[in-house]
Amino acid sequence: MQTELSRQLGAEHALFGFTPFPAVAAALTRAGGFGVLGAVRYGASDELRRDLDWMETHTGGLPYGLDVVMPAKKVEGVTEAEVEAMIPEGHRQYVRETLAKYDVPEMPEGEGGGWRITGWMESVARSQLDVAFDYPVKLLANALGSPPADVIERAHRQGIPVAALAGSARHAERHKAAGIDIVVAQGYEAGGHTGEIASMVLTPEVVRAVDPLPVLCAGGIGSGEQIAAALALGAQGAWLGSIWLTTSEAELHSRALTHKLLAAGAGDTVRSRALTGKPARQLRTEWTDAWESPEGPGTLPMPLQGLLVAEANSRIQKYEVEPLLGTPVGQIVGSMNTERPVRAVVDELTRGFERAVARLNTIAGVGS
Amino acid sequence: MQTELSRQLGAEHALFGFTPFPAVAAALTRAGGFGVLGAVRYGASDELRRDLDWMETHTGGLPYGLDVVMPAKKVEGVTEAEVEAMIPEGHRQYVRETLAKYDVPEMPEGEGGGWRITGWMESVARSQLDVAFDYPVKLLANALGSPPADVIERAHRQGIPVAALAGSARHAERHKAAGIDIVVAQGYEAGGHTGEIASMVLTPEVVRAVDPLPVLCAGGIGSGEQIAAALALGAQGAWLGSIWLTTSEAELHSRALTHKLLAAGAGDTVRSRALTGKPARQLRTEWTDAWESPEGPGTLPMPLQGLLVAEANSRIQKYEVEPLLGTPVGQIVGSMNTERPVRAVVDELTRGFERAVARLNTIAGVGS
Repeated sequence: MQTELSRQLGAEHALFGFTPFPAVAAALTRAGGFGVLGAVRYGASDELRRDLDWMETHTGGLPYGLDVVMPAKKVEGVTEAEVEAMIPEGHRQYVRETLAKYDVPEMPEGEGGGWRITGWMESVARSQLDVAFDYPVKLLANALGSPPADVIERAHRQGIPVAALAGSARHAERHKAAGIDIVVAQGYEAGGHTGEIASMVLTPEVVRAVDPLPVLCAGGIGSGEQIAAALALGAQGAWLGSIWLTTSEAELHSRALTHKLLAAGAGDTVRSRALTGKPARQLRTEWTDAWESPEGPGTLPMPLQGLLVAEANSRIQKYEVEPLLGTPVGQIVGSMNTERPVRAVVDELTRGFERAVARLNTIAGVGS
Repeated sequence: MQTELSRQLGAEHALFGFTPFPAVAAALTRAGGFGVLGAVRYGASDELRRDLDWMETHTGGLPYGLDVVMPAKKVEGVTEAEVEAMIPEGHRQYVRETLAKYDVPEMPEGEGGGWRITGWMESVARSQLDVAFDYPVKLLANALGSPPADVIERAHRQGIPVAALAGSARHAERHKAAGIDIVVAQGYEAGGHTGEIASMVLTPEVVRAVDPLPVLCAGGIGSGEQIAAALALGAQGAWLGSIWLTTSEAELHSRALTHKLLAAGAGDTVRSRALTGKPARQLRTEWTDAWESPEGPGTLPMPLQGLLVAEANSRIQKYEVEPLLGTPVGQIVGSMNTERPVRAVVDELTRGFERAVARLNTIAGVGS
């Protein structure tokens, strides 16, 4: 499962995995794929340094990447406290009321939330980049918009290609103009931030729009057959995120969440602004329903919504409040029904890919 | 491009085309595909008979099918006038006001609307079936739900397989239980009535759910690469609808509509209830916007909405009122940029399919 891009990056398979968990990223890289560690959950750069050290000792020189978040809408020059002050009291009240309705306990004294808004601020992303450039990362990805020109230049000076996510052809063209090297076409069915155009249509549109830049297909991929589909659409690789959430190496905050993911069907996700203020696909829960409800105050724009709900999400996860418990995940959650090591997933993906290619050859009459 | 199903149906390619235009259906069949004529626009059965006679003389014994609409929600035992009477006056007023805002002229005296609600009524669908069974149609498809048991039995007695559209695995399982032979998995990106699950995820889910029944992938397919993707996902064929709208053989009511389709991008469609009362993907227009507007009365349930807007749609089409002019179409509209004969489209589809398979073989290292 080798494309020009995977060869260039030194991976055996054109199989890219985005994950917030170093153990997953390293296992994927060791299994012949290309692990991409998401940095958004790191508030402090020393935590990132610790985990990149760990990655170095657990990937044995095989390639991996780092994904940072530099938001399109900058919140530069303001402190987290100043951003906090922009949140209307009515919204805070709604969070308190909703948590109270489900008897969600307060966080213990001195214990903070896991997910922090700070990961979404450019200053934080820049301090993460300062760390990242000390390591031999082979790819730098940015989940929201093109990174600033100086970041792209700095990466290029170190020989690191830069990837950026796009939900439309126009979005992808802007990335190309900004000097991006690889576009990740993120379809409607993907977990996390998505646009409205499905992978089947988006992938070839983006391939055409940014030619000759390589494109990765993200969204709707959890099997080797889906990888074959992505590559048939012209992608130079598949970018998978959701599927790693139920691997043995994933460190989800809560067993209850793992069980929810294993039980969910393809129809159990929703594109909601509840998590960050921008539409992001996630498990549909009574929490996302509360933000759609006509009785609610509606969601706030990014980054306010993320800041508003950060502590609530930590409490929901810590106490495993089942009806509210969710996570970003794509529509392939319906096929995530067993917990397995990353290597077993990769083996199944490559076998499924080969099966699909053999089937297509039969249909095409190749070799007959 | 042959699968077990296309062989069984006697078609050269596993390429199914749904179209309301006999000239398109016949041209597709002659080009080696399998044309499926949509019957919903036929109010009177003698018009259908006339067009099936025409199909017979223009397909030269090659296979074609018929698609009828038997709504899940029956409106049996009531007349069209009685259904009309269920429409609130406020909704009629909103239609009148919206048309007036755009200076849409009245229909000329004695000229009716083209699209009729009657095509959505079971009694009408049954009279169409009485006609269809007089012809050697090779497939009977139903666009909404499973047809009644007696219709399936009658088709089977005549050796005609029955296909039904599904937007979810559960929906597909109900079809299988009802005795359906072929399931058309209609993804979110498709034109017309769609669910929320994209083809990339829906197709393999439906394949698993109804195994060993054959599944066709619908939604997001307008190139040979997309056909390869659909078949990689386990489908026994691709079901294309939108792409025929801009073929030379298509008989759209209006040139302005053709130009709008050729100019539209993938982001210019919307899933709206404005046309029928159920979510159907179509060109986004100021008409669909009017039905989303908070100032509007909202849409009515099927079949009332279709009845409410039928005459308005005819007037909009007749007078080519550009900002309001729309049609059901999928997200592939962004790649429909030239008007060509059906045969040229089919040639490009089969060439694109072969190209995609060759590319996958290179990636898989087959033959290397």
